[in-house]
Amino acid sequence: MKAEAKPAPAGFETLVEFGKPDAGLRRRLYTIIFEADTTAGRRFDIALIVIILLSIAVVLADSVAAVAQRYGPAMSVLEWGFTLLFSAEYIARLACVRRPLRYATSFFGIIDLLSVLPTYFALFMPEAAVFLDIRILRLLRIFRILKLTHYVAEYTMLARALRASARKILVFLSTVLMAVLIFGTIMYVVEGPENGYTSIPMAMYWATVTMTTVGYGDVVPQTAIGKMIASFMMLLGWGILAVPTGIVTAEMTSLRMGRRPPTTRTCPACLSEGHEPEARYCSDCGTALPRYQVD
Amino acid sequence: MKAEAKPAPAGFETLVEFGKPDAGLRRRLYTIIFEADTTAGRRFDIALIVIILLSIAVVLADSVAAVAQRYGPAMSVLEWGFTLLFSAEYIARLACVRRPLRYATSFFGIIDLLSVLPTYFALFMPEAAVFLDIRILRLLRIFRILKLTHYVAEYTMLARALRASARKILVFLSTVLMAVLIFGTIMYVVEGPENGYTSIPMAMYWATVTMTTVGYGDVVPQTAIGKMIASFMMLLGWGILAVPTGIVTAEMTSLRMGRRPPTTRTCPACLSEGHEPEARYCSDCGTALPRYQVD
Amino acid sequence: MKAEAKPAPAGFETLVEFGKPDAGLRRRLYTIIFEADTTAGRRFDIALIVIILLSIAVVLADSVAAVAQRYGPAMSVLEWGFTLLFSAEYIARLACVRRPLRYATSFFGIIDLLSVLPTYFALFMPEAAVFLDIRILRLLRIFRILKLTHYVAEYTMLARALRASARKILVFLSTVLMAVLIFGTIMYVVEGPENGYTSIPMAMYWATVTMTTVGYGDVVPQTAIGKMIASFMMLLGWGILAVPTGIVTAEMTSLRMGRRPPTTRTCPACLSEGHEPEARYCSDCGTALPRYQVD
Amino acid sequence: MKAEAKPAPAGFETLVEFGKPDAGLRRRLYTIIFEADTTAGRRFDIALIVIILLSIAVVLADSVAAVAQRYGPAMSVLEWGFTLLFSAEYIARLACVRRPLRYATSFFGIIDLLSVLPTYFALFMPEAAVFLDIRILRLLRIFRILKLTHYVAEYTMLARALRASARKILVFLSTVLMAVLIFGTIMYVVEGPENGYTSIPMAMYWATVTMTTVGYGDVVPQTAIGKMIASFMMLLGWGILAVPTGIVTAEMTSLRMGRRPPTTRTCPACLSEGHEPEARYCSDCGTALPRYQVD
Repeated sequence: MKAEAKPAPAGFETLVEFGKPDAGLRRRLYTIIFEADTTAGRRFDIALIVIILLSIAVVLADSVAAVAQRYGPAMSVLEWGFTLLFSAEYIARLACVRRPLRYATSFFGIIDLLSVLPTYFALFMPEAAVFLDIRILRLLRIFRILKLTHYVAEYTMLARALRASARKILVFLSTVLMAVLIFGTIMYVVEGPENGYTSIPMAMYWATVTMTTVGYGDVVPQTAIGKMIASFMMLLGWGILAVPTGIVTAEMTSLRMGRRPPTTRTCPACLSEGHEPEARYCSDCGTALPRYQVD
Repeated sequence: MKAEAKPAPAGFETLVEFGKPDAGLRRRLYTIIFEADTTAGRRFDIALIVIILLSIAVVLADSVAAVAQRYGPAMSVLEWGFTLLFSAEYIARLACVRRPLRYATSFFGIIDLLSVLPTYFALFMPEAAVFLDIRILRLLRIFRILKLTHYVAEYTMLARALRASARKILVFLSTVLMAVLIFGTIMYVVEGPENGYTSIPMAMYWATVTMTTVGYGDVVPQTAIGKMIASFMMLLGWGILAVPTGIVTAEMTSLRMGRRPPTTRTCPACLSEGHEPEARYCSDCGTALPRYQVD
Repeated sequence: MKAEAKPAPAGFETLVEFGKPDAGLRRRLYTIIFEADTTAGRRFDIALIVIILLSIAVVLADSVAAVAQRYGPAMSVLEWGFTLLFSAEYIARLACVRRPLRYATSFFGIIDLLSVLPTYFALFMPEAAVFLDIRILRLLRIFRILKLTHYVAEYTMLARALRASARKILVFLSTVLMAVLIFGTIMYVVEGPENGYTSIPMAMYWATVTMTTVGYGDVVPQTAIGKMIASFMMLLGWGILAVPTGIVTAEMTSLRMGRRPPTTRTCPACLSEGHEPEARYCSDCGTALPRYQVD
Repeated sequence: MKAEAKPAPAGFETLVEFGKPDAGLRRRLYTIIFEADTTAGRRFDIALIVIILLSIAVVLADSVAAVAQRYGPAMSVLEWGFTLLFSAEYIARLACVRRPLRYATSFFGIIDLLSVLPTYFALFMPEAAVFLDIRILRLLRIFRILKLTHYVAEYTMLARALRASARKILVFLSTVLMAVLIFGTIMYVVEGPENGYTSIPMAMYWATVTMTTVGYGDVVPQTAIGKMIASFMMLLGWGILAVPTGIVTAEMTSLRMGRRPPTTRTCPACLSEGHEPEARYCSDCGTALPRYQVD
């Protein structure tokens, strides 16, 4: 429960500090680059975010033929500028932590590296450049700042709701996949290649498109029986897909309403039940409550 | 909490009164135009709503080529009639409030102005006429009447639910955008321009169309691997998009079921917040809490 | 609460009895035709449902060109058979109630009439025949039988949930319509007739198709800016459309958890209804309740 | 409630044991094949799952023309290998249970048989081969393993939520079907065959595609009035389809949270909690309750 309590958004357990170095320049650098709760640190983070967004914008623009033709050179100049900046930052990060290797192998260490490599690779294999978008992942750093804001509560809640639902959703997905395979096969038999269902995997793709209510319309049933099965699938799909919503919502509602799986905490004095796990005193009579043993 | 209590639908804080003028004609005008809880005021509001709807209908009809050709002149006559009416109303509003500037700069003041300007502009630049639809926003006035009805409760609740969820949803959107960018890039690489993914922004548009389960079908994956990724995205999209539903629902449920959003009840002794409305003693330090004033 | 307690599915207030006639043949007829809780009555209802479904099937089949050509004559014979049957039933109903007019003007009275008229009209204007599908509405009678089953609880709950949400949903719809009009206008300006947005109403149709995530793809944005707005609309649409789900769910949850699954447990002393299955004493007068037999 | 309590995922009542045979080889075989809580049994199950997945993969690949042409022979060899394996397993299962017939006629007994037959049939009628995908259903066995894991809770809950909602959803579906038929007929009349609504069943297919927000776009309204009706249907569809989500979610939430809404009313006599706000007497001991102060 303790672990749950402290603001630890989903998958951010990797956001560990890599050992505060001793005083001096490195320490100062560390405070700026890694910490977000100092003025300098926050300024640095915000600047970083802006630069990241700009570099993404450049990558996007560069992928548009018209733009690439006209501003190609300018683009690549900007691109290189950003890359050098990020490379410098990466080296600085390596320099100022006490355990560089541990940083380098951490989630963000790898992301930071991957976000500069493509440009260098692009020297030899140009098409690699597009992968620069990996930089967007660096924006996850933004959560470092959010951590300081009121978002924490929301995050913790979201994270807990999803983590708590994870297994249910997994089970749900396996069910969906079975349905997709079975219906796909049926439609492959019913409609056949001449109607666009060229293979079972293709039919499964169609089944997914249909059950998720995306409905591209690139492949559609042509035969009467096929249309009937499809109609059934749509309704079924809707029914099935109501389940994850239900799971997540139920999770969130119960979290939101502070009703964790009904606690049986009973006040020894007034026997009132259902006290919050955090409660230290009975909210009905004010007597001290026995410690809450974490389940 | 008090602020929450009085019927103030989301974003209607702008619905302030602009200083009741002294008795006499202006006062009377004011009562009719601005107040909605007098018979005259309500009549005026309803008349206004009808006229607004009519003027909208004219704009819509006028945009249909066939209609425009046959009834063009009649249309523009009607159009001018409405515009003059609204202009007169706007001036009257300015006239009868004590602080005209404050009204002119208020949300509705601006809307009222914008809803007449296009016609005048249209004299010089005809295509501006379509923007007359801005008048629809004036229908928000309808809420002034609703305020008098039982809708208030629903409104306040909806407003509170959405306001309470706003931040969570913002966070959620940022996550979706990241997913859209990353998947867009991947598909741009996998499918490439020859299959309609002409640029990363284009691919991102496709990703949005897919993850929101809209699925136009104007661009669809052609390669096997592309179809696989798309299928995965659809399921993921459904999963992701179950989250906002969950957020809003959880919010509403807890409001609906009388569990106020974490109360601001603060313990006088240990300053701990968010005690249950029913709590009589601080659950952190056990000191008696001041009575909870019902909103 | 009393009114709520008795099983009255939404919109079934029209299912009133039309005055029990005195004993004799009419009385007997009445019991068979109008009552559903006698063996004869139930048999009659089930037979009726089967016939209705058959007649619907005929109408559907008749609309398929291939079938109509081959079995045209047989179809019309069947059709006339059903119609005469239903006419006879209608007359019988009129005959056996004490206040024929009151039945004739009741919801089902009208439906019953409408379900036979088209065939007769078809003699003069053939295309009227398709409206025979109105007969499906007669299937609402099925609820008369369901009323006797355990469906009641579900119905009452669904009905109450929807009735309780009705106003909220209405308000919600008005908001959606505003959004549709505004976005439609914007897209009409941005994309223009040359891209299929031939008029504002047409653009509004597109906006609805997009915001409800239906996404036919018959009209799609062509310009970059149009695609951007569309993407925004999709996300917005999803957000907006999470609201009704939220409303209905919140309503249902609170009903479901308000622990009033309409039990018919009645206190022998004060006749108050809907006591908890666990309740051992009447919560209104405190007298002991008879044991609750689980169904 | 007991029955509910023990891990019994939906529809797994068929997973009964078929009578443990006496000691010896058969007993040993039985333990391996049928039981999942022994090491040997679990290994066997996992091996089985892997093989099933492989065999499915072969069927899928074989349906792809390109692959079939190149690796046809290899495929059929593999196919036969798997089939013989499964046949052996089937015989072993028959051999080691005490009541072979009871197994043969059980859910899994039939699935096991169906998963091998197609290959043999394929000798005489090749197209039967595709039905080998029925093997996927054997994966339901995986739940036998899951039963041992923590999934149980989730399963039981999901199962209970769905079972509890089943009837509501059935009722809901019947309503949807009525709407689909009525709207389908209307559109068939409005749009007519020349716009793709070739028959009422066809129009009903379109209605389903629209109301479930799938929106293929293979058939779309062409007339203005048709577009209007369609738009209305989409919004209606969304509204209607919010219902099953609501049903499932409400069910889950109340299960997830236990059915106690947060009233803290305690009976002064027996200290039982959670009495109705309206309750005037304790429903456990029948003594008068203190007035409920509305917060």
